[in-house]
Formats: sequence, C-alpha cells, structure tokens
Amino acid sequence: MIAVDWGTSSFRAYRLDGHGTILDTSVSPRGILTVTDGRFADVLRQEIGPWLEVERRMLLSGMIGSRQGWREAPYVACPAGGAEIRQALIPLELDWPGKAWLAPGLSCRSDGVPDLMRGEEVQILGALGELGEDGGLICLPGTHSKWARVARGRIMGFETHMTGESFAVLRQHSILGRLMPPAGQEQDPEDRAFAQGLARAKTGGGLLHHLFGARSLGLMGDLPVAGLPAYLSGLLIGHELAATAAIPGPVHLIGSEALTERYSKALTLSGRIAKPMAPDRAAAGLHFLSQGL
Amino acid sequence: MIAVDWGTSSFRAYRLDGHGTILDTSVSPRGILTVTDGRFADVLRQEIGPWLEVERRMLLSGMIGSRQGWREAPYVACPAGGAEIRQALIPLELDWPGKAWLAPGLSCRSDGVPDLMRGEEVQILGALGELGEDGGLICLPGTHSKWARVARGRIMGFETHMTGESFAVLRQHSILGRLMPPAGQEQDPEDRAFAQGLARAKTGGGLLHHLFGARSLGLMGDLPVAGLPAYLSGLLIGHELAATAAIPGPVHLIGSEALTERYSKALTLSGRIAKPMAPDRAAAGLHFLSQGL
Repeated sequence: MIAVDWGTSSFRAYRLDGHGTILDTSVSPRGILTVTDGRFADVLRQEIGPWLEVERRMLLSGMIGSRQGWREAPYVACPAGGAEIRQALIPLELDWPGKAWLAPGLSCRSDGVPDLMRGEEVQILGALGELGEDGGLICLPGTHSKWARVARGRIMGFETHMTGESFAVLRQHSILGRLMPPAGQEQDPEDRAFAQGLARAKTGGGLLHHLFGARSLGLMGDLPVAGLPAYLSGLLIGHELAATAAIPGPVHLIGSEALTERYSKALTLSGRIAKPMAPDRAAAGLHFLSQGL
Repeated sequence: MIAVDWGTSSFRAYRLDGHGTILDTSVSPRGILTVTDGRFADVLRQEIGPWLEVERRMLLSGMIGSRQGWREAPYVACPAGGAEIRQALIPLELDWPGKAWLAPGLSCRSDGVPDLMRGEEVQILGALGELGEDGGLICLPGTHSKWARVARGRIMGFETHMTGESFAVLRQHSILGRLMPPAGQEQDPEDRAFAQGLARAKTGGGLLHHLFGARSLGLMGDLPVAGLPAYLSGLLIGHELAATAAIPGPVHLIGSEALTERYSKALTLSGRIAKPMAPDRAAAGLHFLSQGL
C-alpha cells in the first residue's frame, strides 16, 4: 500500500509491504500550500508516479483532508481510535485503478471550546503498540504542540498549545527579535539561557509579562544577546509545561530529534518523566488504519 | 517651556506657560525610527522651529533618550519620583541659546529579571496630583502595557506586559489572522466575543493553549469570524488582568479612549474597580519635572 502524510509545508509518502515495513520513501517540500488550482493529483503523480503503477491501495492523512486540501474529511469527535477513524475515511476519486481514502482529523471540547488536530492522530495511532494497553500521555511538540491522552487504544482528548508558532512570530516580527542574533547564530538551546527561561516560567507574573524579559535581560546586560532566543524558547516551553502539569504520568514525546531533546530536558528540569519515542509514526499509523479496508 | 514626548513612532510637543497650561501643541508621526543619520536637531526645528525662537527651556522624554535616540539617558532604579528623575536629567547640547534636557527611563527588578520603561514615567508623574497622597496602582495599556505602583509621589515598581504587541503579531503573522476579517472590519470589541475571550482567560490551560481557540472556535462555527479579533483581544487582556490580579486596589488607567474603555470593561467584568484618568499626561509630567531646573 501507499501511505501519504501530506501537510501544510511538506509531502511524505511511504510504500509499505503487507506487514507495514517501509519499502520506499518519498519526501518533498510540496506541502498543500504550494499546490495551486487544486492540482493535487498532478503533484501526487510527480512525486510517486511509479508506485501508482504497482500499488492498489492508498491512504492519505494530514492537511490534505482539510478545507484547504484536496477534499474535506470532517473531524471525528473524541474519544476515537482506529475503529472510529476508519469509519470516517473518505473515498477519494482518482483516475487510477486502485482505491484511495482521506483520513479525517479529530476534534474534542473543553470548557465549551473546541480543539482540533489533523495528521497527528495518525502519528499517535502508529505509536499505540509502544504505549501498551494502558495508554498514556503523548506530546507532539512543534508549531502547534499537541498533548493527547490515550487509553485502551483510543485518543480520549487532547489540547493544542501554539508554542512553536508563538516563538516564530515573536522572534521574527516583534521587538524581541531586534536584539537577537540571526537564526542559526544563536547559542545551543541546551544552555543556561534555556534553563533560565524555564525557571522564569515557574514564577508568577504571566507569560505576557515574562516575554518582556527576553528584551530587558539583553538590554541590561544580564544575558548575552546570543542566548535570548534560547531564553524565549525556555519561557514558552516552560509555560506550556506549566499548563499541562496537572496531567499525570510520564510524557511520551513524538517529534524531531532536536525538539524531543529540548522537551525532554524541560520535562526533566520540571521533575517530570520524558519518554522519547521514535520520531515519525505516520507510516505505521496509516498501515494500522488500512487493516480491514 | 517646551515639553517634548518623542517616542518610537510619534513626536508630540507642547508649549507651556509657567503654570503648565498648554499654549500650543505639535503632533507628527516623526517618531525616532523615522529619523535617519541622527538628524534629531533638524527634525526638531522642522516641527517646532518658531517655538525655539521664543522659549529658553526644553525637556524631552521617551525613546529619544534611548540608545536608538539622540543620546542615552541611563535608566534610574525604582523607587523613583520627581527628585530622582530630575537628578538624572541629561543636558543636551544644541545650537540654541536655551537649555535642553533628556529625561531618563526607569528600571526595576523582580525575581532577578529587570523591567524597563521610558516615557511612561513622565505620564505617571503628570497624574500624581489626581492620585492623591496615598498613590495607587496605575495601568498604561498599549503595545507594552505598564502596571506601576505609586506611593508618596514615587514609582515603587512596575511590570510590563506585551499585550498589544502580542495581539498585533499574532493577528498579522500567525495562522490566527487567516480566519480574521481585515483590520477595521472586525466587530466592536465590546461585544460578546470579547467577553468570551476574557472568560476563557480565567479558566486553566494557559495562554498558549487558549490562543488556539481563536482559530478552532471560528473553524467549527462556534464564533462568527468577525468576532475572532475581539475574542483574541479578550484572551490577551484577560491573561494580563489575571497576572496582575494580586495587586490590590482600584486600577487607574491612562491611555487612549478606546483602550481605556476596553480595559475598564475587562476590569469591571473581573470584579475590579477601573478609574479612567485623562489620557495624555506627558505635558503635565514634564512641567512637573522642570520645576526648580
């Protein structure tokens, strides 16, 4: 089968055998935002044309199933596991002798406010085996960090934290970026400034107040300006961790090596247990979903 | 005398008589960021040349006294009142028969982190008379909101909240802005969405999580997209108020009419007492500082 994880800014496809073993991989920066006039079928052929000659089943997840994607696959309400998500797969019409489906995203509500994910649920399904029967807490750090509670193979609920995107817009577009070195020239985030930001997040005053410290500490010479990006990162991740501190148990991390390392350090410094997992679970999750189709 | 409040994005000057009564006003968008090659003296002559012919004393406050301004007037540590600030005035050399001084900014520390203001301290000095002997709590809402505690004519300490700037960068540069109507076409901030954002800020989950609601509520049709800017504004102001809730007493507000109205509503909805003050106190503050020079 073909498993496609097609997000906003990247395209990742896997050719899998019947056991879910990856036979071939195709990765490109052709996320859905780069596709004009709805020419998703053309891009698919350009990226994995030869696979389409030999395979007859394809499952796609991520923003490709959103309103901005190929076709909308409506959100499924939590609690939801493989069965609920499989039932909500949307068949995709394609000039191809095989069968293709779009995976839906998930929704949940807390305090009357909806939360949404699209793509991460497949990563979580791919990690279920490693989690065990009892499930647990999974964090997928990133632009929009997702914190999901899993029990008996189902995602019970989750929350999104705009940590990575807040870091990016504050650094690139707010006054905080003016003192900072250009991206790539900052100090290692594992340094003292990152820990200082984390520690600051544990004190009172609120995030909007703490943010200004990423300027004033530099202006007053308390922190070298090369450490200001790490300090800001520590502040934001620290606030994310403080807001999720009430959720008990070890935190299973799925993400890039750099992000997983940073969150592991932050969790450990907060007295919590970090359990890094293998980074990319989309292929495994889509293979799991394809069972019985 | 001439009182000049010269900030990052605007220039405001006042000609005052001996009692501090405003005889003439000059306002322009020539903030220090628009001045190239340090040509501050030229801009000053272009804006208030005729006043320089007749007046012989001038006091300038705001970012004009920063490292990016005409000359740096170092920060004075709190507690500081008229006496401490007056002592730290920096004489400004100018091809002019009169005398000119730059006002310093203020600094303070909490939890080992410095905080800074430059310009707002003059507004606060200008409001001292209205506050009375006991002083009180003053909030100057804006791009960087300042909350200052005043006692016996001195600013004891303060904190900055990056509320306005966070709103601007999230709206203009994050995914939250994509669903929102163009600036100017949003609903009145006094509406239901603003109150909903304020209420959400009182629940747990943290600001980084709450921010995502300004997208998901729109995507799921829970909130009309025209109300999303007001919701985001309510969220951010609500978090600012939650972080300052431990500071007792009524909150005296100095700011534009629109901001003062919005903060008054937010404070009242939070069960606190809002005391709007007259909006622009720079002239009064600089006149007060000029006494005895």
